[in-house]
Amino acid sequence: MAFGWIDEQAELRRRAGLVRTLRPRPAESPLLDLASNDYLGLARHPEVTEGAARAARTWGGGATGSRLVTGTTELHAELERELADFCGFEAALVFSSGYAANLAAVTALAPHGSLIVSDAGNHASLIDGCRLARGTTQVVAHSDPDAVRKALQTHDGPAVVVSDTVFSVDGDAAPLARFAEACREHGAGLVVDDAHGLGVLGDGGRGAPHATGLAGADDVVVTVTLSKSFGSQGGAVLGPARVTDHLVNAARTFIFDTGLAPAAAGAALAALRLLRREPERAARARTVASELHTRLTAAGLEAVRPDAAVVSVRAPSPEEAVLWAAECRAAGLAVGCFRPPSVPDGISRLRLTARADLSEGQIERAVRVIGETRP
Amino acid sequence: MAFGWIDEQAELRRRAGLVRTLRPRPAESPLLDLASNDYLGLARHPEVTEGAARAARTWGGGATGSRLVTGTTELHAELERELADFCGFEAALVFSSGYAANLAAVTALAPHGSLIVSDAGNHASLIDGCRLARGTTQVVAHSDPDAVRKALQTHDGPAVVVSDTVFSVDGDAAPLARFAEACREHGAGLVVDDAHGLGVLGDGGRGAPHATGLAGADDVVVTVTLSKSFGSQGGAVLGPARVTDHLVNAARTFIFDTGLAPAAAGAALAALRLLRREPERAARARTVASELHTRLTAAGLEAVRPDAAVVSVRAPSPEEAVLWAAECRAAGLAVGCFRPPSVPDGISRLRLTARADLSEGQIERAVRVIGETRP
Ligand SMILES: Cc1ncc(COP(=O)(O)O)c(C=O)c1O
Ligand SMILES: Cc1ncc(COP(=O)(O)O)c(C=O)c1O
Repeated sequence: MAFGWIDEQAELRRRAGLVRTLRPRPAESPLLDLASNDYLGLARHPEVTEGAARAARTWGGGATGSRLVTGTTELHAELERELADFCGFEAALVFSSGYAANLAAVTALAPHGSLIVSDAGNHASLIDGCRLARGTTQVVAHSDPDAVRKALQTHDGPAVVVSDTVFSVDGDAAPLARFAEACREHGAGLVVDDAHGLGVLGDGGRGAPHATGLAGADDVVVTVTLSKSFGSQGGAVLGPARVTDHLVNAARTFIFDTGLAPAAAGAALAALRLLRREPERAARARTVASELHTRLTAAGLEAVRPDAAVVSVRAPSPEEAVLWAAECRAAGLAVGCFRPPSVPDGISRLRLTARADLSEGQIERAVRVIGETRP
Repeated sequence: MAFGWIDEQAELRRRAGLVRTLRPRPAESPLLDLASNDYLGLARHPEVTEGAARAARTWGGGATGSRLVTGTTELHAELERELADFCGFEAALVFSSGYAANLAAVTALAPHGSLIVSDAGNHASLIDGCRLARGTTQVVAHSDPDAVRKALQTHDGPAVVVSDTVFSVDGDAAPLARFAEACREHGAGLVVDDAHGLGVLGDGGRGAPHATGLAGADDVVVTVTLSKSFGSQGGAVLGPARVTDHLVNAARTFIFDTGLAPAAAGAALAALRLLRREPERAARARTVASELHTRLTAAGLEAVRPDAAVVSVRAPSPEEAVLWAAECRAAGLAVGCFRPPSVPDGISRLRLTARADLSEGQIERAVRVIGETRP
């Protein structure tokens, strides 16, 4: 029977305790949220939701076509201008998701005959970009500039180094400045995904490349998502105008995808303007993460020191991680639970996200619940 | 210099007359729109835009996380239920775009050792799905069930046949019933992209698979987009629950992507309910397409007989196609212009889309302008 093999895989997953199921959440949840990526607490901010509502009314429910046909509105252009300006790049190009932006950046910047040097901890969307690209991929050890350098030495011709700025599983930061140094020694381009850096790192949340002095460099391309700190949906590629112009002409997930919905563009633009007005939100998210880490460690838990707003806590096994997260939930706390195959190293963890709008009392409560429910 | 090769490619494009640039449109355009994919004229319908606005207010500007963490709201579940029910499938799974839904369906249903038989006219997102999948792809002649049959005969083990239901360039329909027949002879699964069928074909717009009696079959999986007839953004995979459960566990563009923004889900749900109430919109879109074709042909233009709502008109060359579209625009008419590399056969065309809300007078005007500006 067609798709018969699916049942066998499902059975294997059941036996391994790795079945995933969806749990629809209500609009008003009684849970304390340390699971979402709403780092600045903006997804439900009235200015952001009004930005979405107003854009839908003004521009319609959808963009109605691909960006090159009818899917570019003046709202998209405005968002691109303000985003580029905020992050310190010449140009920005908005996509329907961060995933699509990553596929676009990697495929369009790694043509046939080129080398892609890809960090072993990279996000699935960058990995899929490498798989789709015509260039050859070499995966190098996690956060290892010397490994990058060595990989670049093996190749003549165009090369790009591809990395997350903040890795999504453990929340650790990439050695961006040293990656850039290695790139420059070899004339390679640097493509970094600032999904977890935008809104959290850098001056007023301008992101990790800005914090590292790489913003606006002609050999650096940055991708971001509008779905985390900006509380919306969508993604963008930031870089020199010649690079974004190239993407308009060559990136399949730009050319053959419907433009981002106006409501999402409107929400993201509202979040960006709010962050400009309240730049302290970025620092507050980092402080909350740091406090979570300090208190978890003090409670004897094995937490990774956060470089941004993600705090990862080790669990002994996938089963215990699932149980731990379930017990947190029963005690009123929503936490993320990462386990195989979503973790590159096979280690299961609870994944906590700091939010700028968490109070001291909420931080304390979260740490208490996590400690009390530990396996 | 990093990215130096981009300038050479840009120069080649310039010389070939193939440079693409974005043209942001205002909220209220004076142009008559025959370029968007808003087939039912719902993108700016007040119920749809209010659906978006209300959802943003109730649920926030974004879904705040991946579907398996915090990104599944009750609104997503509601949309999935109603969409599955409308199209006649057991289950539906919503994605951030139709592109992501296609990547998910093809990659998750074509594991290592499997065969993918892919129609030569397929959309870029299905092609990228084939490239990303672990199975082996065999591209077969366009809309040729015998070629499909022959390809399936070469393979032992799991196989899927992948096709658009309505091809996006020329608007021609795939021979779905005969594809299904070929699949069943060989125990292969059928995966079809109904992006241009949903809302236009089938009883009240239930889509091409429904019209062909394939809805709900246990060996048929359908992908759709919410960005065309439904006037929003997003995509979905429809099929047996065991298939959507499998995707929840295996599809990277589901697991590693932020959930669809509530506003987009709300707009799509409003459009779906509106279409249920006003099923005649679907037939009207087909009638408009047919009238466009009849009158264009009567005017001596080479137009492809439309099977859905896309009407394609041949242009002599890429340069003339661009000029033709520009002259239409100068005369107040927006039309699509498809040219290499966006067309598989190298033939440039004007691409017109019928909308259910076009009046007789508008159809007449469109045909007159296209005729008067012909190269
Ligand atoms: C590092 C990283 N990059 C890219 C993405 C994809 O962004 P989006 O959800 O906007 O598609 C994510 C998560 O969703 C991520 O964690
Ligand atoms: C046939 C087909 N499939 C899939 C897509 C992608 O859908 P979306 O724009 O929702 O990503 C499109 C166009 O956008 C299309 O024409």
